[in-house]
Amino acid sequence: MTRATPSVLVMPDDEQPRRRVRVAIVPDSFKGSATALEVATAMARGVQRASTAAVSGDLEIRLSPFADGGEGTLDALLDAWGERPRTVATTDALGRPATARYGLSPSRTGVIEAAEACGLPQVSDRPLEPLAASTRGVGTIAAALLEEGAREIVLCVGGSATTDGGTGLLTALGARFLDRAGGELPPGGGALADLDRIDLSRLDPRARTVTWRVACDVTNPLCGERGAAAVFGPQKGATPADVARLDAGLARLAAVVAAEVGLDADALAQRPGTGAAGGMPLLLTAVLGAELVPGSELVAQTLGLADVLAGADLVLTGEGRFDEQSLHGKVVDAVARHAPAGAAVVVIAGEVALDDEAVHAHGVTAALATARGPRTLPELSATVADDVEAAAAAVVRLMGL
Amino acid sequence: MTRATPSVLVMPDDEQPRRRVRVAIVPDSFKGSATALEVATAMARGVQRASTAAVSGDLEIRLSPFADGGEGTLDALLDAWGERPRTVATTDALGRPATARYGLSPSRTGVIEAAEACGLPQVSDRPLEPLAASTRGVGTIAAALLEEGAREIVLCVGGSATTDGGTGLLTALGARFLDRAGGELPPGGGALADLDRIDLSRLDPRARTVTWRVACDVTNPLCGERGAAAVFGPQKGATPADVARLDAGLARLAAVVAAEVGLDADALAQRPGTGAAGGMPLLLTAVLGAELVPGSELVAQTLGLADVLAGADLVLTGEGRFDEQSLHGKVVDAVARHAPAGAAVVVIAGEVALDDEAVHAHGVTAALATARGPRTLPELSATVADDVEAAAAAVVRLMGL
Repeated sequence: MTRATPSVLVMPDDEQPRRRVRVAIVPDSFKGSATALEVATAMARGVQRASTAAVSGDLEIRLSPFADGGEGTLDALLDAWGERPRTVATTDALGRPATARYGLSPSRTGVIEAAEACGLPQVSDRPLEPLAASTRGVGTIAAALLEEGAREIVLCVGGSATTDGGTGLLTALGARFLDRAGGELPPGGGALADLDRIDLSRLDPRARTVTWRVACDVTNPLCGERGAAAVFGPQKGATPADVARLDAGLARLAAVVAAEVGLDADALAQRPGTGAAGGMPLLLTAVLGAELVPGSELVAQTLGLADVLAGADLVLTGEGRFDEQSLHGKVVDAVARHAPAGAAVVVIAGEVALDDEAVHAHGVTAALATARGPRTLPELSATVADDVEAAAAAVVRLMGL
Repeated sequence: MTRATPSVLVMPDDEQPRRRVRVAIVPDSFKGSATALEVATAMARGVQRASTAAVSGDLEIRLSPFADGGEGTLDALLDAWGERPRTVATTDALGRPATARYGLSPSRTGVIEAAEACGLPQVSDRPLEPLAASTRGVGTIAAALLEEGAREIVLCVGGSATTDGGTGLLTALGARFLDRAGGELPPGGGALADLDRIDLSRLDPRARTVTWRVACDVTNPLCGERGAAAVFGPQKGATPADVARLDAGLARLAAVVAAEVGLDADALAQRPGTGAAGGMPLLLTAVLGAELVPGSELVAQTLGLADVLAGADLVLTGEGRFDEQSLHGKVVDAVARHAPAGAAVVVIAGEVALDDEAVHAHGVTAALATARGPRTLPELSATVADDVEAAAAAVVRLMGL
């Protein structure tokens, strides 16, 4: 794994076969300091500048910003596609008018960061309302994508203020959640205990024909002590009483949906990942046939990471902080898993919090920090582009590429 | 220069010739944080741990602490020789009793740091006396080395509080500096204007048979506006009047010595380097036949750097701060100049203050800083050994050694 430059036949210089040097550049963003694209272009400058193969015209750089399905994924995909963000008038988690950004690729793959419409930050100006918070705005974005002819929707669910099981999302697409009296339930998970049936007759048919893929890195089930309400409710403002009510509501939702689609309610409620983002994946999977995929893996598929890394001698990646988490479902983990055998995988990070043995055991050849000396975090942020460029140049020179 | 691993013949794995990997480790100290030996052993740990050749028993590490002829050179040479420092009762620049450290190699090469006996720090507890400060203590150390049978004396002259032209040094070895009345002059450069002749009849004969080599990185002449008194006098406490008196005294000394040894006085006073360390090199060269050598070059010769670096695939060096100075007569410069063609020369430093283009232009493949993230200088000092080890391991893994 560490062998950088494959052996070549020794022959007279004039017969030396010209060997193409392939470098793939797929960093995450340095959160708070630089976007994934800014990091990637800085790495490319360093590689271009330091590579002897560049002089002979034998250097091939493939570059793509990368992300892990969390914050920044929308921007990374837009940058990778060379597309500008689109916006739509929608509502925040509390139903107030808002504007949300989303993306659509030339091949009609749409991308939504749920937090754009139902995120905690947008509602942090008011007391949290865990019982009323709704994902309806996410559905509004999805409706816009369906109008624009999206064939696939990649949904990143992280950072939501909601625990509504995705009912708001489906409501915006035409579904109706009714009580015994046939009245529509008010928004939010707090009302789900009163759910009697779901009317899907007016559901936008395109919502079922489009391919849904949901970025999900947690395995929590919908209900119970590891469920959406118990684990994530409190950080969304839920009191113990709220948690109980939300958990019961989600259980009720699972039961009704299970009957609706002919599944076992318990199996549905225990399905790993359905407890993510206030249960948003529940209806997406059960009603719309969405697939739950680990975030970095989903982004890897969407970007065609395998093609970007194919034949690479060196794979450069990086992130703001390279630590234990990075090796579990994050960008570096995905890159290391997809890197071709024989490629050197090198991480450039603002902070390297792993010892090199641990790094190497995960298939990462080496991890370099950007600091060129004693620096404060603000100082590092201010020079991140130059420092990343210098580190990339050093890697290329050490490998003799 | 950057090509790390030479091409090898491609043949079936079982016939793959086992190739020895040679790594030479020759760092300077990280002043204030770690000695050259501590840095070198940390680098060796990283190389040993990360090298695949170590597993197959094909790794060869040659290690030697290094120095530039300035502060730390005595310790570096002692560590390289595996010798303990010797001490001798001597005097400081103001003639007060003191103890000085010095070294002697198994092959009878002695090393003296003049500052041990006539340095500014030892006399900083009192008002400086630029006119009276004497190098006599340095001569006392030299006398001890002659007693111990030294065949060669390496003298590092930096950091002195003196401007006596080396008269004190020679006095300790038996020379007498006399006025018209035949009386011995008092210590220090202030009295040299009264010098009438030098009596070398009682000079220890071994002082002339031993080989003197003086580490000297400045080219200042003895006298004039670029001379010892004018340039270095003020930092030793000399007033403008003192500077004039010291300059005149050194000129007088040069004239008398020139007559003594049959040289041209002006040529002697203008000889580059004689203005170093208060003119200490003057008598060393004119009377004792000492050779002036750039500090890092002198240490390189004394350590046999060429042998240490011979056949190396990788040369690891480093210092606390790698900057423009480092490339002019300092350790990294000497290492880069002596490194065999085809070897990668890598600098590991606490601060890398040069861009990688400048570094590379000087024959250094890459320079890595030790910081693993945002750190203060005290934080970096506290973890320097671990950080240097990690950086060395990363270099070896990137080079696939």
